[in-house]
Amino acid sequence: MTYKAGIVGYRGYSGAELVRILEHHPAVQPVLLDHRTEDGGRPPIRHASHPVRLHCGPEAIKNEGLAVVFLATPPEVSMELAPVMLGAGALVVDLSGAFRLGTPENYMAWYKETHTQPALLAEAVYGLPEFRRDGIPGARLLSNPGCYPTAANLAIAPLIQAGVVDRAAGIVCDAKSGTSGAGRKPSLKTSFCEVTENFSAYSILRHRHVPEVLMVSGIEDREFSFTAQLLPVHRGILETIYCRTVGVESAEDLLAVYEKRYAGEPFIRLYEPGHVPDLRAVARTNFCDIGVTFDAASGRAVVVAAIDNLVKGAAGQAIQNMNLMLGFPETEGLL
Amino acid sequence: MTYKAGIVGYRGYSGAELVRILEHHPAVQPVLLDHRTEDGGRPPIRHASHPVRLHCGPEAIKNEGLAVVFLATPPEVSMELAPVMLGAGALVVDLSGAFRLGTPENYMAWYKETHTQPALLAEAVYGLPEFRRDGIPGARLLSNPGCYPTAANLAIAPLIQAGVVDRAAGIVCDAKSGTSGAGRKPSLKTSFCEVTENFSAYSILRHRHVPEVLMVSGIEDREFSFTAQLLPVHRGILETIYCRTVGVESAEDLLAVYEKRYAGEPFIRLYEPGHVPDLRAVARTNFCDIGVTFDAASGRAVVVAAIDNLVKGAAGQAIQNMNLMLGFPETEGLL
Amino acid sequence: MTYKAGIVGYRGYSGAELVRILEHHPAVQPVLLDHRTEDGGRPPIRHASHPVRLHCGPEAIKNEGLAVVFLATPPEVSMELAPVMLGAGALVVDLSGAFRLGTPENYMAWYKETHTQPALLAEAVYGLPEFRRDGIPGARLLSNPGCYPTAANLAIAPLIQAGVVDRAAGIVCDAKSGTSGAGRKPSLKTSFCEVTENFSAYSILRHRHVPEVLMVSGIEDREFSFTAQLLPVHRGILETIYCRTVGVESAEDLLAVYEKRYAGEPFIRLYEPGHVPDLRAVARTNFCDIGVTFDAASGRAVVVAAIDNLVKGAAGQAIQNMNLMLGFPETEGLL
Amino acid sequence: MTYKAGIVGYRGYSGAELVRILEHHPAVQPVLLDHRTEDGGRPPIRHASHPVRLHCGPEAIKNEGLAVVFLATPPEVSMELAPVMLGAGALVVDLSGAFRLGTPENYMAWYKETHTQPALLAEAVYGLPEFRRDGIPGARLLSNPGCYPTAANLAIAPLIQAGVVDRAAGIVCDAKSGTSGAGRKPSLKTSFCEVTENFSAYSILRHRHVPEVLMVSGIEDREFSFTAQLLPVHRGILETIYCRTVGVESAEDLLAVYEKRYAGEPFIRLYEPGHVPDLRAVARTNFCDIGVTFDAASGRAVVVAAIDNLVKGAAGQAIQNMNLMLGFPETEGLL
Repeated sequence: MTYKAGIVGYRGYSGAELVRILEHHPAVQPVLLDHRTEDGGRPPIRHASHPVRLHCGPEAIKNEGLAVVFLATPPEVSMELAPVMLGAGALVVDLSGAFRLGTPENYMAWYKETHTQPALLAEAVYGLPEFRRDGIPGARLLSNPGCYPTAANLAIAPLIQAGVVDRAAGIVCDAKSGTSGAGRKPSLKTSFCEVTENFSAYSILRHRHVPEVLMVSGIEDREFSFTAQLLPVHRGILETIYCRTVGVESAEDLLAVYEKRYAGEPFIRLYEPGHVPDLRAVARTNFCDIGVTFDAASGRAVVVAAIDNLVKGAAGQAIQNMNLMLGFPETEGLL
Repeated sequence: MTYKAGIVGYRGYSGAELVRILEHHPAVQPVLLDHRTEDGGRPPIRHASHPVRLHCGPEAIKNEGLAVVFLATPPEVSMELAPVMLGAGALVVDLSGAFRLGTPENYMAWYKETHTQPALLAEAVYGLPEFRRDGIPGARLLSNPGCYPTAANLAIAPLIQAGVVDRAAGIVCDAKSGTSGAGRKPSLKTSFCEVTENFSAYSILRHRHVPEVLMVSGIEDREFSFTAQLLPVHRGILETIYCRTVGVESAEDLLAVYEKRYAGEPFIRLYEPGHVPDLRAVARTNFCDIGVTFDAASGRAVVVAAIDNLVKGAAGQAIQNMNLMLGFPETEGLL
Repeated sequence: MTYKAGIVGYRGYSGAELVRILEHHPAVQPVLLDHRTEDGGRPPIRHASHPVRLHCGPEAIKNEGLAVVFLATPPEVSMELAPVMLGAGALVVDLSGAFRLGTPENYMAWYKETHTQPALLAEAVYGLPEFRRDGIPGARLLSNPGCYPTAANLAIAPLIQAGVVDRAAGIVCDAKSGTSGAGRKPSLKTSFCEVTENFSAYSILRHRHVPEVLMVSGIEDREFSFTAQLLPVHRGILETIYCRTVGVESAEDLLAVYEKRYAGEPFIRLYEPGHVPDLRAVARTNFCDIGVTFDAASGRAVVVAAIDNLVKGAAGQAIQNMNLMLGFPETEGLL
Repeated sequence: MTYKAGIVGYRGYSGAELVRILEHHPAVQPVLLDHRTEDGGRPPIRHASHPVRLHCGPEAIKNEGLAVVFLATPPEVSMELAPVMLGAGALVVDLSGAFRLGTPENYMAWYKETHTQPALLAEAVYGLPEFRRDGIPGARLLSNPGCYPTAANLAIAPLIQAGVVDRAAGIVCDAKSGTSGAGRKPSLKTSFCEVTENFSAYSILRHRHVPEVLMVSGIEDREFSFTAQLLPVHRGILETIYCRTVGVESAEDLLAVYEKRYAGEPFIRLYEPGHVPDLRAVARTNFCDIGVTFDAASGRAVVVAAIDNLVKGAAGQAIQNMNLMLGFPETEGLL
């Protein structure tokens, strides 16, 4: 059986990636939904076939029978569209930060805006399958995790849960992201001449993705130092994570924690001791790759986690979640 | 004696390069002129000294005693400001296309706008010193050449003037420019994610820089095929020029044409036969480097010319022109 | 039915691309063949499954029942291995220049080496399916085209064959390639610091890929000016081609020549008049994209053709050829 | 009075930068010294004047009257050449790691080689002027600091010396370097196709630059977690440093520590609270730029320090040291 999935924001980098992946999905067909005016997109190739394109509204959902709608839109647009799409009978997968933080207070604290849909916020399921798989199949509104927290939680949460981290000494997450993470809207900050041959840090200790890590990994703000940094690459996130361990004697011990936690997980790959992933290893895949380095004399661990910010950090994970919501194999269209 | 030079558009890439070069010029001091609101610029470094910054208007010229004003502005702003600056007693060096094409008709044909200052257009001196040096010292309004035509004319005009080109067979100029050539204003076309790992052609056969080549090199539009292309680099222009020759027997013959024409020129460098410049050779310099390859069997020549689009293609040449206008050595501040 | 395909040179960029594509091919399974020592390759990911890896020799062909062997090796290695692999019963697809030029004299003229397998050279089929499809299914030894000539011939040959080019005026092909075209062997020329923020021309008028264009497009050396240039990108070739036309009145006329010639071709895409492809459009695909610009007043045409040098310019086309040789649909594993 | 300075290893990136800077130094003239065969270097530009080039040996020192010799060579070559150059009467500035670590045992521990010049190792002065200025004027053998430790010590040592760091909680230094830091010798790791669109960590917790930080900043290995990472840029180092503070109430407090320590330092620039440098800010300069972010609730500080690895991290600092050794103003040729 084939389903149709609407995509709002299909011009953006995450939205375009959703279209690209769904065009190869065996059971779900993409439909482009225009919210307000959108500029031109694909090049004018003769005889090319493109996905159906409709005005974004309840009629499109009903007439086309869209099973699910992806919102690859800013938070304020997601808050506006989510109730409309749900009301028209579609499941919603939201890729913005609108429905990630659980409470209006938390949203206000980090996004500096009033949340206009508190009931939906309470209902939304945070879709990090490796940690919240059970709640996803029944979700009406799925909140897709942020790109930085996806890698951070996949690297940190197993260690916290296994009790091997000296939390009092703090956890440092030094994160680097490709420029597509800043979105497709033109800005000086993401202009070629400003980014090439450059590297810069931003939102140090105050990035709005921080609360997602606190929430999933179960740590306190004061224990978690996070820096976001802009790499002169198109796509990819690499996070270098530093902590002190308790009860760990070797890199192999640490890897055993991950191996146990992630047994059977299709999208987690672990590296042999002393080896760590680079961006290249995960480009255009839905994998999160994890490697560890350990100093036995001091108990210090350095964990390197890498994802493609547009795939496992956005569109790929959104489709992983959609697969779970619609009852498909979790990896469908993603390998 | 020290002069002061005003710079309008000092946030733009050419304008910032003017400031950078003038900060090291022994006899001219930069003054920033604000035309409308400009966003912040330099990083907030403690105790840093910055050039004086004033509102752009006749008072600034008079009160500060500005000898010259550089307009690193769009053509329509240059047309608005040039008469004001001249009226207040300053010399003007305009880096836009506003005063390059000689007649309002020519301007309309290529810029698709009415020229609002035809008298100044007629008066303006086209500042390619290697070909128009005599007219520059007495100029009130100096029109600084476009980046692409600077390299093209320096490579093509000597061969045309020496009569060694088979014009009927046509001259091809395949030009590649770094992204700073498109200016600092954010746009999707110059966004990092659109430019990196990409390469694209634009304005094929119709670029508005073409008439400057026809004018200086003395050839017809139908004889000159020009393509502009966007390189994923910050700065630099490389042009690969193809023609058929008459009366040339070797690469050495071709180089002899250039050597004769450019004897004593401080900013032209020629390469040994078979060697050609790359972008790196001219980065951050005011040089135009030229190399030739020749096929004796067929008389075909390929000339490669390289400049830094922000230096010899913009700010450096503007200061070279200013040096001539103010009576300084031509190379002052540029070596 | 499933076949096995051996790959020699699987560490190189073309070889690795062959492995990547074949891992997703529904009917052909890659087997890695080690010729001499090869360095380590994939990262040490736990529990990862890798293709079978064998010593490269006749036993591997026979014991494993390899139907075909890809030689992603330098010409001298291809000349050494091709007879061995053929003798052991495998079909051979050679990605080097060893078997492209038809005669030992031609090979000597451009590669400056004696050809050691003249009989195989005479037998080899040049595998540009869009122009030589009929000969491919029965070939034992398939010579895969060079990357530059693939784009050049696909853009030029239809126009020559339709008689719309003024050959006397010459055809210029200004070609730009990503750095992977220079291979994976470390060299100063392809070091990051030498390539980034740079652009350079090489082998002007003398590139060893030229004779493939003369051969397929049916033109003379003196009519064809070719420059190869190194782009600071990983992959992709864009060629800007200039010619004067006869009997052409519009861009649409030119496109009609291509449309007629390429009707039904699965890997050729044409652009609407005035639009041309960029590198991005073809990255990681087996497409050759073609767009034209035309000046009616002078009859000048500029054709832009783009391919991914590692796919349509190497591994993708090699698998397209393999599909034809083994009787699979031509697009199998390539869309 | 003018001095002559010899440069061994002038083809390498640091060596070429030494030549470039000295060509503009008002009082010191570069002389190229060939140690073994060196490949060609500068492009074949006609009529270009190049520095004198001599065989590297005691005769060159004596005959040319070289006051100082820069060794931009690997450690083993520096150990071989330093005694020869000193013996011939030149001062020596060594840019390798050969003479940085004080004792043969320390050298063996981090470089895994026997030190062949223990007496010179004991005599060498570690040339970080901001911390060791007094010893530099009288030095015969100056050991120029590593690139990573230069930025790390300039950022960390003032805080340690002021007693504001909670050393028990550890200090994390997450360092990112441009690819020129790996040298000019071709290798797969620094090939364009491996570096572009990639980012990778190496020598985690075990980099041989670590002991220089321990030595200057006065901390223990177990307190200092250092990761080196390769950026897809040509030049520049940015280090993100995390620590917990004691007795600090604001970013301004932290900046006051730096302001006091660095009063009058010509090459240190501090940023306003909440602002941090990027790579661009220091490119092609001898500055070390420092900015801080502070979280008052938890006492956590994040310090960002940036330098150009080839200037303040190598050639610029070497010339700063030479200026002190020869009695010139410290900034001569460097602003």
